[in-house]
Amino acid sequence: MIDFARLQSKFTTLRSNKAFELFVVIVIISSALLVGAKTYELSPLAITLVVWLDRLITVFFLIEISIRFLGEENKKDFFKNPWNIFDTLIVTISLIPIDNTDMALVARLVRVFRVLRMVSVIPELRLLLNSLIKAMPQLGYVILLMFIIFYIYAAIGSTLFEDINPELWGDITISLLTLFRVMTFEDWTDVMYETMTVYKLSWIYYLTFIFFTAFAFLNMVIGIVVNVLDEEHAKVRKQAAIDAHEPTIADLQQQLEEIKLLLKQQTK
Amino acid sequence: MIDFARLQSKFTTLRSNKAFELFVVIVIISSALLVGAKTYELSPLAITLVVWLDRLITVFFLIEISIRFLGEENKKDFFKNPWNIFDTLIVTISLIPIDNTDMALVARLVRVFRVLRMVSVIPELRLLLNSLIKAMPQLGYVILLMFIIFYIYAAIGSTLFEDINPELWGDITISLLTLFRVMTFEDWTDVMYETMTVYKLSWIYYLTFIFFTAFAFLNMVIGIVVNVLDEEHAKVRKQAAIDAHEPTIADLQQQLEEIKLLLKQQTK
Amino acid sequence: MIDFARLQSKFTTLRSNKAFELFVVIVIISSALLVGAKTYELSPLAITLVVWLDRLITVFFLIEISIRFLGEENKKDFFKNPWNIFDTLIVTISLIPIDNTDMALVARLVRVFRVLRMVSVIPELRLLLNSLIKAMPQLGYVILLMFIIFYIYAAIGSTLFEDINPELWGDITISLLTLFRVMTFEDWTDVMYETMTVYKLSWIYYLTFIFFTAFAFLNMVIGIVVNVLDEEHAKVRKQAAIDAHEPTIADLQQQLEEIKLLLKQQTK
Amino acid sequence: MIDFARLQSKFTTLRSNKAFELFVVIVIISSALLVGAKTYELSPLAITLVVWLDRLITVFFLIEISIRFLGEENKKDFFKNPWNIFDTLIVTISLIPIDNTDMALVARLVRVFRVLRMVSVIPELRLLLNSLIKAMPQLGYVILLMFIIFYIYAAIGSTLFEDINPELWGDITISLLTLFRVMTFEDWTDVMYETMTVYKLSWIYYLTFIFFTAFAFLNMVIGIVVNVLDEEHAKVRKQAAIDAHEPTIADLQQQLEEIKLLLKQQTK
Repeated sequence: MIDFARLQSKFTTLRSNKAFELFVVIVIISSALLVGAKTYELSPLAITLVVWLDRLITVFFLIEISIRFLGEENKKDFFKNPWNIFDTLIVTISLIPIDNTDMALVARLVRVFRVLRMVSVIPELRLLLNSLIKAMPQLGYVILLMFIIFYIYAAIGSTLFEDINPELWGDITISLLTLFRVMTFEDWTDVMYETMTVYKLSWIYYLTFIFFTAFAFLNMVIGIVVNVLDEEHAKVRKQAAIDAHEPTIADLQQQLEEIKLLLKQQTK
Repeated sequence: MIDFARLQSKFTTLRSNKAFELFVVIVIISSALLVGAKTYELSPLAITLVVWLDRLITVFFLIEISIRFLGEENKKDFFKNPWNIFDTLIVTISLIPIDNTDMALVARLVRVFRVLRMVSVIPELRLLLNSLIKAMPQLGYVILLMFIIFYIYAAIGSTLFEDINPELWGDITISLLTLFRVMTFEDWTDVMYETMTVYKLSWIYYLTFIFFTAFAFLNMVIGIVVNVLDEEHAKVRKQAAIDAHEPTIADLQQQLEEIKLLLKQQTK
Repeated sequence: MIDFARLQSKFTTLRSNKAFELFVVIVIISSALLVGAKTYELSPLAITLVVWLDRLITVFFLIEISIRFLGEENKKDFFKNPWNIFDTLIVTISLIPIDNTDMALVARLVRVFRVLRMVSVIPELRLLLNSLIKAMPQLGYVILLMFIIFYIYAAIGSTLFEDINPELWGDITISLLTLFRVMTFEDWTDVMYETMTVYKLSWIYYLTFIFFTAFAFLNMVIGIVVNVLDEEHAKVRKQAAIDAHEPTIADLQQQLEEIKLLLKQQTK
Repeated sequence: MIDFARLQSKFTTLRSNKAFELFVVIVIISSALLVGAKTYELSPLAITLVVWLDRLITVFFLIEISIRFLGEENKKDFFKNPWNIFDTLIVTISLIPIDNTDMALVARLVRVFRVLRMVSVIPELRLLLNSLIKAMPQLGYVILLMFIIFYIYAAIGSTLFEDINPELWGDITISLLTLFRVMTFEDWTDVMYETMTVYKLSWIYYLTFIFFTAFAFLNMVIGIVVNVLDEEHAKVRKQAAIDAHEPTIADLQQQLEEIKLLLKQQTK
C-alpha cells in the first residue's frame, strides 16, 4: 500500500517536471513529422522505420497518459478535464491494430489528430483556444441571422435558377454552397453572368446578397473587436486599481467628514 | 360583450406564453425546411405531403396572427409595429391559391420570405437588425461619395473601352457592374489586360479606382466601428454611473461649502 | 457704380439661397444622367436632345459660376478656395467647342468630371473628402515602405522570371503590376505555378511577398483607425469639457485654499 | 596621431550633415533606378553607362560606409547596430567582381537589396520596421496555432485526396501550399469541386478550414490592434501627465491634512 502511494507521488513529480514536458512536446513533433513523412513516396526501409517509430510513439503516449492518470490524486478529476478525455481517446484509438485495409485510413487519420495534442500540452495554446471558444456564444445570433440570409437567398436561387445550371442551383444544399462561393468572391461573376442570360436583372440578387452578408460579417467582426477591447479595458482598470494606492475621492470625503466633526466639536 | 373581453384577455395571455412562442418558432423552422424540401426532386407522395403541410402552416400562421391581433388591446397599435405589417402581408399573400402557373413562382417566393418571420419572432434578431438599420443613415454620405467615384469611372470606362469589349463596357449600367467586379478583385486582371492591348496606360485607371474605392470602403468600416465603440462606451459610462453610489467631486464641493459655512459661523 | 454694388449684394443673396443650391444639385445630377445617357445607343432625335441639354447645362454652369464669382466681395478670395478653381476649370474646358474629332473624346471626358462638382457643392461630401486627404500624409511612410517592398520583389522577379514569362515579368514596371495582382490574390497561383516549373522553391518568393505586403497594409489600416479614434476621443473630451459646468479638482483646491485662509485668520 | 583624431572628428561632422544624408538618399534612389533599368532591353551604349554608374555607386557606398565607420568613436559600437552590419554586408558583396556567369545572377540580386539601404538611412522607416518586428513575438502563438491547423488539414488532405490530384495533394508540402491557396480564396472552388466528385462531403473539409483559419487570422489582427491601441493610450496618458500641472487628488489630500493640523492646533 505504501509502495503504491510512493509511486504515485513519484508520478506526480514526473508529471510536472519541465524536462518531461519538453520531451513530450518533442515526441508530439516527431509524431507530426511522421504523419507528414507518410504522405511522401518512401523506400521499403523507410516504411519499416516509420512503422516502428509509430509503434514507439504509440507506446510512449500510452505510458505518458498512464503516468498522468496515476499521478492524479483524485482519479475522477482526471476525466473532468476535456483535454484529458481528448488525449485518452486519441491514444486508445491509436492502439487498435491496422491490419484491415478498410480501417487503415481511419487509423491514419487518428494519428493526424495526435498533432492536436500540442494544444493540450502547451498552456499558451490551450488558453488561446479557450478564448476562441468563449467568443463563440455571443456571436451565435449574428451567425443565425447570417444563416437566415443565406437560406432565403438559397431558396430563391434554387427556385429561379435551377433550370439554368442544376450543378450550381440544383437543390438548397448546393445553392448554399454556391452562395458561400459568391461570398468569397470566387468566380462569382461567372455564376452571375450565366443567370443574367435568362434573368437580366439577376445582378440585383447577387449585389444585395454580397451587401447583406458583407454587412453582417462586418458586424460579427466588430462584435468580437468590441468585446475583446472591453475585456482589455476591464483588465487595465483592474490592474490600475491594484497598482494605485493613490487616494480616491471616497478617501477625501472621509477626511472632510473628520474635519467637519472637528469643527462641530469646536463650535460646541 | 363580456364574452369577447374574456376571449381577448385569453389571447393576450396566450400571445406572451413562452410555450406558444416556442411552438411558433418550430412552425417557422418547419416552414423553412418545407421551402428547402421543395427544391429537391420529390416522389408524388412526398409532394402531396408537402402541399398538405404547407396548407397547415398557412392556416396556423393565419390563426397565430389573428390571435396576436385580437390580443392587442388597442387595434391601431398593432399596425404601428412594422414587423406586424410584414407578418400580415406575408400571411395574406400566402392565402392566395396557386392554380395559375404564372403566379406559382411568385407564390413560392413569398413562402420563402416566411423564413424572415424568424427575425420578427426572436427578439434578439429583431434587435440586431434594428441596430444594422440604425447604422445606415450615417453611412449615407460615404455611400454617395462611393457612388460618385463609381459613376465617374463607369462613364470614363464606357467612353474609352466601349469598342474594346461592349459586353463589359457597353453602357454605363454594364460598366458599373464591371467596376463592382473589379472592386471584388474577381478576374479584374483579365478586364485590365484586355483594355491594355489598346490603351497601354489603362492600368492607371484600374489602380486608382481600386485605391479610391478601397480607401472609401475603409472609411465606411471605420465609421461604423467608431460609432459602435462610442455607443458601447456611452453604455459603459451610463452603467458605471448607476452602479457607483460613490461620492463625486460635486459631493465633495457641497461638503466643502458646509465646512466654510461652519468656519464663517465660528468667525462671527 | 451704385447699380453694380446692388447687383453684387443680390448675387451674394442668391448664392446662399437654399432653393438655388438645390437647383444647382439637380442640374449637376441631370448633367451626370446626360453623361450616362451618352453611353447608350441613341436615336438621332435623342442625340439632338442630349446635345441641346448639354449646351443648356454648360451655359447654366457658366452663369452659376459667374454669380458665385460676382457674389464674392473680395475677388481674390474666390481663387483661394481650391474647389472654386476646380469648378472654373471644368466650366471653362466645357466651353471649348467639340468639332474636331480628336478633341471630342477629351471634351466628353471633361463633361464626366462635372459629376465631381457634386462634391464641391454638397458640404458634407467636401468635409468627407477633406478628411480623406488629411489622413494621407501620415500614411506616407507606410506607403513608401510598401513601395520599397514592391520594388525589391519586382526587381528580383524580373531578374529571375523574365525568361519564363516576359508578359508578366518582362521589365520592372510590368513586374510591379504583376505583384499588385498577386497582392489582390487574383489568379496568383497561376503566376506561381508557372515559375515553380523552373524554380521549385519560388513559392517562398510569393508567400513572403504576400506576408510582407499584408502585414504592411494591416499596419496602414491600423494607423488610420488609431488616428480616427484618437480624433474622436479628443472631440468627445472637448465636448464633455464644454458640457460640464461641474466642479473640477482645481475648483476644489481653490475652495480648500479659502478654508485654510479662514482657519489661519481664526488662529491669529 | 593628432592628424588622425582631427580627421575622425571631421568624419563625425560629415556623417550627421543633413546635406550628406540627402546625397546618400539620392545615390540609393539612383541605385534603385539602375536596378530597374537593367530589367529593360538596353542598347550597348546604355549597358556601358549602367555598368559604369553601378561601379560609381559601389565605390560611393564603400566610401560612405568607411566614413560612417571612421566617424564612430568606439569602433565596437559600429557593429552593435544591426543596420550597420546589414550595410557592410551589402557593400562588401557588391565589391566581388562579376565575371563568372554563375555568380552574375547572385551579384545582380545583391544589388537589388541595396534598395533596402533606404530603410537603414531614413529614420522614420527604421522606426516603422522596428515596430513591425516588435509586434511579431506576441503573435508567435497565434501563428503556431494557425500552423497546427494547416498541418492537420494538410495531413488529412494528402491522405484522402492524393489519388484524386497528386499535383495539389501529392505530399504534405504541396498540400500546405494548396491550403494556403484555399485560404486566399484563389480558385478554391475548383479544388473543392474536384475532390467532391469522389468524396461528396469534402465541402465540410474546406468550409471548416476556411472558418478556422479566418477566425485565427481575425484573432491575430485583433491582437495587433489591441496592442497598438494600448501603446497609443499609454503614450497619451504619459503625455497628459507631463502636460498637466493641474492639481491631483493627492494634492487635495495633502491640503486637507494641513487643514486638519490647523484645526487640531486650534482645538488644543
